[in-house]
Amino acid sequence: MNIWITGAAGFVGSVLVRYLLEERPVDFAHLVLLDKRFPQTHTDPRVRMLEGDFYDPAVLEAAAAHPPDWVFHLASVPGALAERDFLLGQRVNLEGTLALLEALRARSPVVVFASSVAVYGAPLPPLVDDQTPAHPSSSYGTQKLIGELLLQDYTRRGYLDGRALRLPGIVARPPGPSGLASAFMSELLHHLKAGTPYTLPVSPQARMWWMSARCCAENLLHAAQIPLAPQEPRVFLLPALWASVEEVVAEGARLFGSDREEAIRYRPDPDLEARFGRYPPLRAERALALGFRHDGSLAQMIAQAVGV
Amino acid sequence: MNIWITGAAGFVGSVLVRYLLEERPVDFAHLVLLDKRFPQTHTDPRVRMLEGDFYDPAVLEAAAAHPPDWVFHLASVPGALAERDFLLGQRVNLEGTLALLEALRARSPVVVFASSVAVYGAPLPPLVDDQTPAHPSSSYGTQKLIGELLLQDYTRRGYLDGRALRLPGIVARPPGPSGLASAFMSELLHHLKAGTPYTLPVSPQARMWWMSARCCAENLLHAAQIPLAPQEPRVFLLPALWASVEEVVAEGARLFGSDREEAIRYRPDPDLEARFGRYPPLRAERALALGFRHDGSLAQMIAQAVGV
Repeated sequence: MNIWITGAAGFVGSVLVRYLLEERPVDFAHLVLLDKRFPQTHTDPRVRMLEGDFYDPAVLEAAAAHPPDWVFHLASVPGALAERDFLLGQRVNLEGTLALLEALRARSPVVVFASSVAVYGAPLPPLVDDQTPAHPSSSYGTQKLIGELLLQDYTRRGYLDGRALRLPGIVARPPGPSGLASAFMSELLHHLKAGTPYTLPVSPQARMWWMSARCCAENLLHAAQIPLAPQEPRVFLLPALWASVEEVVAEGARLFGSDREEAIRYRPDPDLEARFGRYPPLRAERALALGFRHDGSLAQMIAQAVGV
Repeated sequence: MNIWITGAAGFVGSVLVRYLLEERPVDFAHLVLLDKRFPQTHTDPRVRMLEGDFYDPAVLEAAAAHPPDWVFHLASVPGALAERDFLLGQRVNLEGTLALLEALRARSPVVVFASSVAVYGAPLPPLVDDQTPAHPSSSYGTQKLIGELLLQDYTRRGYLDGRALRLPGIVARPPGPSGLASAFMSELLHHLKAGTPYTLPVSPQARMWWMSARCCAENLLHAAQIPLAPQEPRVFLLPALWASVEEVVAEGARLFGSDREEAIRYRPDPDLEARFGRYPPLRAERALALGFRHDGSLAQMIAQAVGV
């Protein structure tokens, strides 16, 4: 069995690669990693690293030397950047995804697509569940929803076997610019661990959905393995922890030391507070019934995100 | 003011063109017609006819000699054909629409997009209204929904001023192959008028939504004229008449002669009956409040569709 991963050097991608290589949850012959560039190399002889745009015909042709059984399509221009640079987002998130699906059409692999809760748009309804309609209010959310629709149509036609996961905010990204407006969630966890002062751009009562990258990687792998009938819906809202910033800070203080609470200051940005501080409860019954999981507890989420 | 129409030689397009030229509901300087070929010419000096694919850069550049204030984007690979020839549907309905929107981006015209009730998929819920979610179950419905999403994102960004109409079955298409599985609706009306025998592929109780091409053209023109705030939803379910085949036949007998009822036979095709015979009631409150209209009565619908 061969596995392809687009965006393999990205935040979630590199966690998934490490999980596959170090913990060996599944057997495979070749692991084909696609990304624009790879900051680190891999010594495992099963790994092929292909640098370039995942939708570049030359890259796709090189990858085809190891025809895929599973494809994890994680590569994406993130939300804030897709909003700022419209054409870049369209090229990568929409046209790139379309080109990838076309290249995969003749091979009918399982395709796991990293979609996003951004498809729901803002403001969110009082509860988000499997019936919540998608009404994107950003170019990123629009492009992700279009990716889901294409994946479902390709699946319905028997061209491939698609599964789209609507990912919540995933933590903890490495520090530094990410193009994500929700990056403060990751920054908070890093600062809680390090014990360094940090000023959050949202209020203590801001509530959002939390999932560690490790938990996300397990859900992605699970998505590739669940048996689904051809006509079953292929888009999944994932379970995630629903917690306020002050609950996360309190849990961080329990894990790392009581001085942590004093190191966190709040200077809410009205725009960020509106977009990322008002997440409602989330009920992902269909995904839970199929075995998708959240981190279990805030303590485990923090431990999996930044280590203890 | 300049107006562009893609698919201008098509069924709805040619009715819209005739309406604009002969009844002069609005003033314009140039009417730019785009289609693959035009079976008839126009003597009106305001008309420019451009043959070719509407998404061909050379065609778009030629059209740009008359920068548009209003664009009616009607060109489309119809449902049955888009299902049979996947790549053709993707190229025209998806990539073509995307190329057109990109070409219009710098000019911010009003863009009226002919979407379709096919976005709802099958089976339909017991009632279709403004809250009914779109779950396409065909490539055509998928491509139309993607067109709506792109139009809304371009509108939200201020690139253009889009309005998408989810059109029901429009009658009466000229006889002959159309690529539409619902062509029997138009065939029925032609045969009712001519008094010629016809065997319907659905049962007498089959119920669907009916709108004449003339009524459709009026709604398209209305869509270009209604004032909408930037953040208002840009996708409209249209009012349409909800009637069974036997009600339409009975009305045809009243209009054209009582012998009409005997000339119609029924040999239901289970697939067509399931897809086109079970349309539920339709409640298009938002569109009605904004002044969109159905034909008014079955008698008017038939009269507008085939004449009396």
